[in-house]
Amino acid sequence: MTLVPGVGCVGGVPTVEWRGGEVVMIDQRRLPLQETYLHCRTWQDVADAICSMAVRGAPALGVAAAMGMALAASSALMEHADDPAAFRGAVQAASEGLFATRPTAYNLPWALEEMEAIWRREDLSPAEITTEMERRAVQIYKDDLAFCRAIGENGADLIQGENPVVLTHCNAGALATAGYGTALGVIRSAFARNPRLRVIADETRPLLQGARLTVWELIKDGIPVELITDNMAGYFMSKALITHVVVGADRIAANGDVANKIGTYTVSVLAKEHSIPFLVAAPSSTVDRRLADGSVIPIEERDASEVTGYGDVCWAPPGVRVRNPAFDITPARNVTAIITERGVARPPFEESLRQLEARGRPRQI
Amino acid sequence: MTLVPGVGCVGGVPTVEWRGGEVVMIDQRRLPLQETYLHCRTWQDVADAICSMAVRGAPALGVAAAMGMALAASSALMEHADDPAAFRGAVQAASEGLFATRPTAYNLPWALEEMEAIWRREDLSPAEITTEMERRAVQIYKDDLAFCRAIGENGADLIQGENPVVLTHCNAGALATAGYGTALGVIRSAFARNPRLRVIADETRPLLQGARLTVWELIKDGIPVELITDNMAGYFMSKALITHVVVGADRIAANGDVANKIGTYTVSVLAKEHSIPFLVAAPSSTVDRRLADGSVIPIEERDASEVTGYGDVCWAPPGVRVRNPAFDITPARNVTAIITERGVARPPFEESLRQLEARGRPRQI
Repeated sequence: MTLVPGVGCVGGVPTVEWRGGEVVMIDQRRLPLQETYLHCRTWQDVADAICSMAVRGAPALGVAAAMGMALAASSALMEHADDPAAFRGAVQAASEGLFATRPTAYNLPWALEEMEAIWRREDLSPAEITTEMERRAVQIYKDDLAFCRAIGENGADLIQGENPVVLTHCNAGALATAGYGTALGVIRSAFARNPRLRVIADETRPLLQGARLTVWELIKDGIPVELITDNMAGYFMSKALITHVVVGADRIAANGDVANKIGTYTVSVLAKEHSIPFLVAAPSSTVDRRLADGSVIPIEERDASEVTGYGDVCWAPPGVRVRNPAFDITPARNVTAIITERGVARPPFEESLRQLEARGRPRQI
Repeated sequence: MTLVPGVGCVGGVPTVEWRGGEVVMIDQRRLPLQETYLHCRTWQDVADAICSMAVRGAPALGVAAAMGMALAASSALMEHADDPAAFRGAVQAASEGLFATRPTAYNLPWALEEMEAIWRREDLSPAEITTEMERRAVQIYKDDLAFCRAIGENGADLIQGENPVVLTHCNAGALATAGYGTALGVIRSAFARNPRLRVIADETRPLLQGARLTVWELIKDGIPVELITDNMAGYFMSKALITHVVVGADRIAANGDVANKIGTYTVSVLAKEHSIPFLVAAPSSTVDRRLADGSVIPIEERDASEVTGYGDVCWAPPGVRVRNPAFDITPARNVTAIITERGVARPPFEESLRQLEARGRPRQI
């Protein structure tokens, strides 16, 4: 597989890449100061990379999990080529291990189910299953690239006005996907149509994906961006200096409730207060149709040390108690539109998301 | 002057203290990791401490500016004891220098005007003016302590319920005042009445006054506190885990519009969305009656390096453009009550703030 700069990667940097016996990914914890690469040779390596957030972003987690399963199959084949039950047992253990890494992003269990549909097949030998799982993992990667392009084009239609200023939160960019991005895909496509577009990026505490990753991607692409702290968005909205909000999603319930990086809900309340369109960009594999609403989406609480400082620096007093939910739920009533590769869903989302699902894949892919 | 621990200082630490020929203040930039003290011997030292935010918080800035003027008078007296015009010229230069340090907090120009009413007096000699200015500076300090106590008691009446959970933003504590605090004064007094009260503290990027100063003060006082990032407040409100918001103020316009630390406006919008009382605690010297509304309150923009990292650590890509407004304006319509030492003002604030002013000082002081 070759990566086309600016599509499958950011300035030549792959987010997650399949190279036969290994999955190569840029270590996002060290960006933008260092560009280092992880070479994952086992599914456990991939699981570690997901847990530690070396790779993050819901669509990228789906791709990484699929590739992790391909590694697991390849490894199980070496030990159990002639024992389908043992082979499936080893592959199932990998699936459970990858499932347990992070709970919120739906693309991860979605990708594991896609792979399970293959390794459960009784009509295939372990060797055939392994080949098929590799093929499917690479297809999920390629689809994600194509879907992000389609999301970008679909979303760009919604960024109207002469001088749009788009606020985005966290990183839903090339680094959160196989490439191009969901929210940043919309921004990239809209900028291609209107070079007067500008971006305001929330830094996105505690892990600063906005300051580190979104700003880095946009500077590389030459898209004008200004960095603010999370608590400044309301100020700029009150000054009418933001015209649109575009964010990604980790999981979308059937009614349009959206789980996304902590702070997204606050931005949605601010957008509603200022009558600013609040747009969610995500592939349809982010929609969890089995969930009626967002109230039961699991919210991960992460380590206190993320909040008491950053990296090796700690600025809070020793012993302070901390809360650190990594995601929040934006209710459907605060969402103007959900942009998928299949088209744009508008309220009421229960109906519009179902229609998009029925429509199937976009024609251009 | 002696400082009573827990009143004039935090755990024995003076925020700003007059010691004859010098103003001693704890260096708040280094808290909570280091407790170091600045000894300001000239008004320029005080101005530097204000600009660099070694001392911060609107009431503390008023106290520091008054004491800086007392230093200026003392220094001018040594050179110009027999030349009232030269004496006043030197003192006026100090007043202008201190005025130019930071634009938003109203207590600073308020204190300078209090001092100007003395040094403009033609009936006093330079020596008499100097004595009087010292006396007034110390009085402003003592008043601030007493006013914070009164604010605390007045505000505690508004923290009802069996298990209040109070969100506060930035630091409006002992460290932002001569002692005890405004918003934290309310929290201290309410906790004394109901020990089931708990606090959630926003970290308050970029300078992290919540994580560093508010948490430090509350831990010292044994008041239960949990630290969150600024973008988490909406999440906890949506879970009904916050019952009240209490913040300080840097300047309050005649109509009740409130300038306070960046992010306050966002919290006020969230509080309104969730029908949570949004309380502002400030001495009446924070009310700028000459301003009809908040639209003309000057908003300081500070250095980009505050946003691209913290301290010596930089996490954003080189060359990124940054916006860094240090304050925002919360419109009066989002404010439930303004708590001063004279009593509690409720909407419409134009009327209620005027009534409080007419009432004068509280009887207990």
